Amino acid sequence: MTDRIFNFSAGPAVLPEPVLKKAQEAIWNVAGSGIGIMEHSHRGKVFDRIRDQAEQNCRELAGISNDYTILFLQGGASLQFSMVPMNLLPADRTADFLVTGVWSQKAVKEVKVLGRKVHVAATGEASNFDRIPTTGEIKYSDRPAYVHLTTNNTIYGTQWAVEPAVPAGVPLVADTSSDMYSRPIDVSKYGLIYAGAQKNLGPAGVVLVIIRNELLEVGPKDLPTMLQYRTHAGEQSLYNTPPTFGIYVMGEVFNWIKAQGGLGAMAEHNGSKAALLYDYLDASDFFRAVAQPGSRSLMNVCFRGPTEELENKFISEATKRGLDGLKGHRNAGGMRASIYNACPRAAVESLVAFMKEFERANRGAAVRA
Amino acid sequence: MTDRIFNFSAGPAVLPEPVLKKAQEAIWNVAGSGIGIMEHSHRGKVFDRIRDQAEQNCRELAGISNDYTILFLQGGASLQFSMVPMNLLPADRTADFLVTGVWSQKAVKEVKVLGRKVHVAATGEASNFDRIPTTGEIKYSDRPAYVHLTTNNTIYGTQWAVEPAVPAGVPLVADTSSDMYSRPIDVSKYGLIYAGAQKNLGPAGVVLVIIRNELLEVGPKDLPTMLQYRTHAGEQSLYNTPPTFGIYVMGEVFNWIKAQGGLGAMAEHNGSKAALLYDYLDASDFFRAVAQPGSRSLMNVCFRGPTEELENKFISEATKRGLDGLKGHRNAGGMRASIYNACPRAAVESLVAFMKEFERANRGAAVRA
Repeated sequence: MTDRIFNFSAGPAVLPEPVLKKAQEAIWNVAGSGIGIMEHSHRGKVFDRIRDQAEQNCRELAGISNDYTILFLQGGASLQFSMVPMNLLPADRTADFLVTGVWSQKAVKEVKVLGRKVHVAATGEASNFDRIPTTGEIKYSDRPAYVHLTTNNTIYGTQWAVEPAVPAGVPLVADTSSDMYSRPIDVSKYGLIYAGAQKNLGPAGVVLVIIRNELLEVGPKDLPTMLQYRTHAGEQSLYNTPPTFGIYVMGEVFNWIKAQGGLGAMAEHNGSKAALLYDYLDASDFFRAVAQPGSRSLMNVCFRGPTEELENKFISEATKRGLDGLKGHRNAGGMRASIYNACPRAAVESLVAFMKEFERANRGAAVRA
Repeated sequence: MTDRIFNFSAGPAVLPEPVLKKAQEAIWNVAGSGIGIMEHSHRGKVFDRIRDQAEQNCRELAGISNDYTILFLQGGASLQFSMVPMNLLPADRTADFLVTGVWSQKAVKEVKVLGRKVHVAATGEASNFDRIPTTGEIKYSDRPAYVHLTTNNTIYGTQWAVEPAVPAGVPLVADTSSDMYSRPIDVSKYGLIYAGAQKNLGPAGVVLVIIRNELLEVGPKDLPTMLQYRTHAGEQSLYNTPPTFGIYVMGEVFNWIKAQGGLGAMAEHNGSKAALLYDYLDASDFFRAVAQPGSRSLMNVCFRGPTEELENKFISEATKRGLDGLKGHRNAGGMRASIYNACPRAAVESLVAFMKEFERANRGAAVRA
């Protein structure tokens, strides 16, 4: 550990150290094959086993049935913003969006770029996305093609505690990029789930897509081949050369999650880390949490200090102490501690200890400000 | 070296061992930052330097002027098959294709999927793509929007020795996935060059795009944001989270090529390796090269044995000797030795030695067959 610091980056983000150690070995010679993981043909037996194992672990962790297909694609969540409507939204239908921040807004924008119809069923824009809409605030359109939500909002530090209810028979589509496998997820409630890997699951450059089989074939067949889900489903994500190294790392992260006790254990670990921070923030009259109680993210804890000057001082001093990546997103300001699965409890304890120290040392400056 | 074997995979393919060593270190702690390369924010200073250095090295190697923009994208060459016509081919124009194999055919198919017009200016289909079209065989359409070629054909082991002439003012678009930076390239002859990384440049999951600036803005603005070149050009490939690790490795490969003496030295190294194989094949009456002289690839040497049975025996025995990945593509049969930049001369020497040994041991079986 001595040569590594605590990394609170919102993504790409900290990965489990045992996974990094395995990746180091695999780069030189994976599975005793005499060839490194980046150098193996995606059509050979060694990579086949890696892909199969990654899929199997992915299924096992969330109990995903064979009614769903698991895909490892490229282009991140940003390309899914387009692929989802291209495949699932006919020109005469409407997609309903639950807008909880910039990423939801970008997803909406890409539907509009395609000239398709969007209905915003709820939005938190009025209070700068500091909370998740209540059930009463959600107004769905008549028979939407699907309902889209962003389960966790990195910029504002909010998270859906549970999935919203959707009209019967309407597929729920979720961008779970920043909280996938940080807690149990009942996949059977969703039509399609997508998650860029770079928060909880692996390196940037792989996006996990879990799609109910009956949705694989609803899309038009005159889309670019790479943008049809059926293309990748029919070839086990091997239609073209997939991001083999990223899939390998994701598979090892799944193994690590299993070794930690699975998604229930992850939720407990993450809940306890987040509580350390939120409890301190709620007790402090120097720092304060941004997101409203009930909507708070267990992944990204956004907080403010008494003044922008003190915030900048805090970030700068924290960085010097080896607490890295705490600057909030430019849309939100302040500070943000991203404490994904692989963030150790010790990192959060160090952060809280430093916050207390900083509060004591700067209380005077805050009162004067 | 003792725990690594000789890898002749067509791609993903062998990478330089010094690059693998660097990547092993960087995964744990890159540039003394205390954070691994996969864990760094793509918006932080450490990754900024990595991306900038990769671009700078890429420019330096081929003397690429500022009239061109360098992009690091996702989706591989397969997504470029669609992105190129989406951006560069108006509905009322025609794109001309020089068809030299399956990958060219796939590129043609994606233009047709979009409902756009294609003219096949030359095709090697009649002789199963065993040679590159001659100048006299190429018949361009009237004022094509661009001319597309595949510079090297992995499946058939053919390669354009020099760029074909194109009508004045018509952009030349090249899929250089399997020979990029294996030899000098005069980028100023091209409008757009794309190359999946996984042969000569890095791991699967990054595609290098070099585009003349004046072509950045010709595409329609109502395309999905991720599929417009201008999006990525305007943000230094950071519109969304890029495949940071892949870009890092590509940058290190560029460094390695520089350290070897640049593209001229690479061409010499590759030419000499290929000559070892072709000279032996031309002298042998047991094995024979598939591609015709003048069209032969320096990257993928395809060859046949006297019978399919002996071919299978050869591949199986070679594999046991630590000469891996020699099975030809299913469309071509026989054997294929992919000897990209990072393939050491010792690998080719071992292969030729084994071929001689196998020829001696099996000459009798060949005569009887």
